[in-house]
Amino acid sequence: MGDYDKVRPINWQENELLLLDQRLLPQKQEWLCLSTAPAVAQAIKDLVVRGAPAIGITAAWGFVLSLLQHREVEDSEQRKRIAEDLRLLADARPTAVNLVWALGEVGRALQPGRDINTSIETAIAIATDLQAGDVSANYRMGELGAGYIQPNSVVLTHCNAGSLATGGYGTALGVIRKAWSEGLISEVYACETRPWLQGARLTVWELQQDGIPATLITDSAAAWLLAEKSVDWVITGADRVALNGDVANKIGTRSLAALCQLHSTKMMVVAPLSTIDIDAASGLDIPIETRAAAELTHFGDCVINDSIASVWNPVFDITPASWVDVLVTEKVAIELPNADSVAALFAAG
Amino acid sequence: MGDYDKVRPINWQENELLLLDQRLLPQKQEWLCLSTAPAVAQAIKDLVVRGAPAIGITAAWGFVLSLLQHREVEDSEQRKRIAEDLRLLADARPTAVNLVWALGEVGRALQPGRDINTSIETAIAIATDLQAGDVSANYRMGELGAGYIQPNSVVLTHCNAGSLATGGYGTALGVIRKAWSEGLISEVYACETRPWLQGARLTVWELQQDGIPATLITDSAAAWLLAEKSVDWVITGADRVALNGDVANKIGTRSLAALCQLHSTKMMVVAPLSTIDIDAASGLDIPIETRAAAELTHFGDCVINDSIASVWNPVFDITPASWVDVLVTEKVAIELPNADSVAALFAAG
Repeated sequence: MGDYDKVRPINWQENELLLLDQRLLPQKQEWLCLSTAPAVAQAIKDLVVRGAPAIGITAAWGFVLSLLQHREVEDSEQRKRIAEDLRLLADARPTAVNLVWALGEVGRALQPGRDINTSIETAIAIATDLQAGDVSANYRMGELGAGYIQPNSVVLTHCNAGSLATGGYGTALGVIRKAWSEGLISEVYACETRPWLQGARLTVWELQQDGIPATLITDSAAAWLLAEKSVDWVITGADRVALNGDVANKIGTRSLAALCQLHSTKMMVVAPLSTIDIDAASGLDIPIETRAAAELTHFGDCVINDSIASVWNPVFDITPASWVDVLVTEKVAIELPNADSVAALFAAG
Repeated sequence: MGDYDKVRPINWQENELLLLDQRLLPQKQEWLCLSTAPAVAQAIKDLVVRGAPAIGITAAWGFVLSLLQHREVEDSEQRKRIAEDLRLLADARPTAVNLVWALGEVGRALQPGRDINTSIETAIAIATDLQAGDVSANYRMGELGAGYIQPNSVVLTHCNAGSLATGGYGTALGVIRKAWSEGLISEVYACETRPWLQGARLTVWELQQDGIPATLITDSAAAWLLAEKSVDWVITGADRVALNGDVANKIGTRSLAALCQLHSTKMMVVAPLSTIDIDAASGLDIPIETRAAAELTHFGDCVINDSIASVWNPVFDITPASWVDVLVTEKVAIELPNADSVAALFAAG
């Protein structure tokens, strides 16, 4: 953790998982201490932690907690309970594919005939590696993405694809951190990101911790920002990338990518390989989570309008690959991603 | 006031102006009773009333109140005080041109040599005509706009361009009311319209009063709505239209028009002739109001993030004429408006 890299949202400590409660940020910095897999699944569902890579890492630690909790249980019952926990964790959020990927990775700790204590040690080692590997991938993506940023650039980001959404450093914010540290960025803008206001609450706070000033806008001001402020790059993360390069990400990402098509702004999506779903041929294969109406009818304890009969609240959308100028992974940055170039990511070597 | 037409926000009653306080809707329906022009200017500034046509009508009544308040004052002092009030009213909001237009209209009540009581009678008659004429224009625009709506259409509107934004019936919502009454619309969607949430608070409430169901979305869900729900029309009002057809309207309108360019959705802007600024050659000549950071950092008494150093909060934007499929005025609906067709609106006959 060097300059511009002070925030870490997930901490494993002595057989317990500490999560920075992102529902309370930035007004309160409180850590939740979790010791069971169902508690971890609930925390993911309740948005204590969010962001595709962070969800994956958290779920992996949830699996470790399941093994620890059931280490003394008789064999067949133990398998049943661990399987139940695994399902709870996998079902906690539907759109981010990193969740399923991370559970698959840590699940390899269970091998036929291996005793539970060895499985636990192995699972802890895998989860530790996942978390450290995520941060390393972010550093690498930061370098690759910053390579596209020209001096004196104006950038706009959406939602929070930062330290808080990952093991640390961030995907989109990793690129911004790296480019900022190299003096390439003149201004950072952040969309407030309705309905959950990740931009207003998390991104601005996180960048403040690292001394990077950001200017907040409403999501719908992005079009006017692009027209008025000569924005060079929109930079976002992704919750899932299909094999043809279609991107599922926070609701509003499709809108920003569309605006880039009609302005002199380029669209960069920053996502580790674990975000790419080799079972999704295109965006059509990606499930889009819709959340409660209350996210639009209320703000905290404040009522906006409690007599609204109908709300449509999808919290992700699909950006077609053809609207993405650069897809940055930890392996390589792909310009104008398509089915061939995304498939090549998984080729040998 | 027939079917689907129950809401009126501005009432002149016995030398006082009653305004439905739109800051409190929909939780409270309270009327403010105003008796001086400065109080009217402050109410416009504070968003008790908003929407370009409604602001114009309200300002006209504010001028009437100025004449009434100073009717007993000595001549030169009277002129001075009325001029001061006029300036306060004209400066209350910068973007809507109807404000200045309506003050010009009602200002004609003052004629050299005319006694104050005659001026007051004339001003009341003009303001009454402005208000009634606005509603008539809305009925006419409703018919013209609905003529473009095919059966079984899905429509999306932004902000509130309804009864609450006008003398009554509305511009964009007038078209939706008319098309709904003719059974042409299958679904109405409304953007919540950050930061002031006119869509969530006002549009949904207003349509509910008339029994028209509307589904609320976040502003940034519009792109995904257009992709998923085959939206036929985005329909908005305007705060000012330039002579080349460029449209200033609520922040986010430009974004919706851009999305229409990339989806099979058409863009309709509904605005009376009083919204067209013959002194603005293009959108570049239209001032864009920016409002307080607090609109993004707080919601009512709830804090979103009170440590944000920088906010950019423009509350209007410019949509280029080339992104507008139909501009509906009370005189004629113009397809693909441009400098020639807008200028023709002001030709004789």
